[in-house]
Amino acid sequence: MSPPPAAASVPSKGDLTRQRLTHEAALIARAQGLEGLSIGSVAEAAGMSKSGVFAHFGSREDLQIAVLDAAAEFFAETVFRPALRERRGLPRIEALVERWFDFVAAQPSGGCILTAAASEFDDRPGPVRERVRAKLLQLRGDLERAVQLAIEAGDFHRELDAGQFAFELHALLLVVHHDARLLDPETARARGRSAFRGLVERARRTPFPSA
Amino acid sequence: MSPPPAAASVPSKGDLTRQRLTHEAALIARAQGLEGLSIGSVAEAAGMSKSGVFAHFGSREDLQIAVLDAAAEFFAETVFRPALRERRGLPRIEALVERWFDFVAAQPSGGCILTAAASEFDDRPGPVRERVRAKLLQLRGDLERAVQLAIEAGDFHRELDAGQFAFELHALLLVVHHDARLLDPETARARGRSAFRGLVERARRTPFPSA
Repeated sequence: MSPPPAAASVPSKGDLTRQRLTHEAALIARAQGLEGLSIGSVAEAAGMSKSGVFAHFGSREDLQIAVLDAAAEFFAETVFRPALRERRGLPRIEALVERWFDFVAAQPSGGCILTAAASEFDDRPGPVRERVRAKLLQLRGDLERAVQLAIEAGDFHRELDAGQFAFELHALLLVVHHDARLLDPETARARGRSAFRGLVERARRTPFPSA
Repeated sequence: MSPPPAAASVPSKGDLTRQRLTHEAALIARAQGLEGLSIGSVAEAAGMSKSGVFAHFGSREDLQIAVLDAAAEFFAETVFRPALRERRGLPRIEALVERWFDFVAAQPSGGCILTAAASEFDDRPGPVRERVRAKLLQLRGDLERAVQLAIEAGDFHRELDAGQFAFELHALLLVVHHDARLLDPETARARGRSAFRGLVERARRTPFPSA
């Protein structure tokens, strides 16, 4: 007899409904921002009663946080984890950046939910802003670790400030996202690649200047 | 008899009302985004009738565009024009960047209206998005001209790609704005300064690598 499948691998009916509602909520958030979300708008989009949605999400903030978590998980699955297959060091960072450029280029209407939420919630204290902050700190921490491995592999200056590199890399991705959506995606990516080459060259030679 | 004052220097009563309504609209846009603006919400905030607001702004889009124009004018007045007092070349760019950092640090609740609008309208075709694009192209053009003057002054590599420099400088300001509002303003500015020093050092030595 084969063993029963692990419980975690079989989503319950409740899990599936929650996933479907999160998906509907993400579509609304893309069109109207996370502030456009409400229990009522998700209920209407899903063809469910409000109390049905309430059974899965206790509040509008729970919904907003579920959308953020799903977006972060999708980013991790599409951009970060595949890059981990590459050798530690610069090859891994290069794979990460190319996948990140792909991710920006493939964004549907509304752009990156996490980037939009950073702009939308930067001045609205509460649990949603805290989740946006937590996701940002996690991203920077993950980037810093990748940079630290590149230092250990001898790809970068041994006293390079990994946090500074992560900050400058994030800057590039923000401007590529910004320009791809308002100006021209091809130019944005070409300029982003050129800037990344410059960043890498600088990180090979210097620990980065202090202000 | 002294000559009558030039007509342009005396705002009419209509101009003053329009200015006051634009100011009220900017406060609403800071709290709720440009999408939160309507003729009705501005009328209520200003204690006027809707038809009174309509006499000054023919549509919601006119209001949104007036808010963008006022924000761009304030940026030009606070950041760009004072920097023009510095010597052409690197000193002018340094003054511009420090003033831009100050501008980011001094943003009230809601952050920079133009940066928020870029995120909000990147996928909403129409006259508001066109105005956001026009303001962005103008900013990049102004930056490029400042960089070109620095090349001519011998402060940067004579084959430096001025558009690439402007792109990377804008990237820095985007991430400083982002981090100042979600993480820590002091760290954001220190990292922004360090990145700017790195950008300048690179622009002295190289024309910037191609992708």
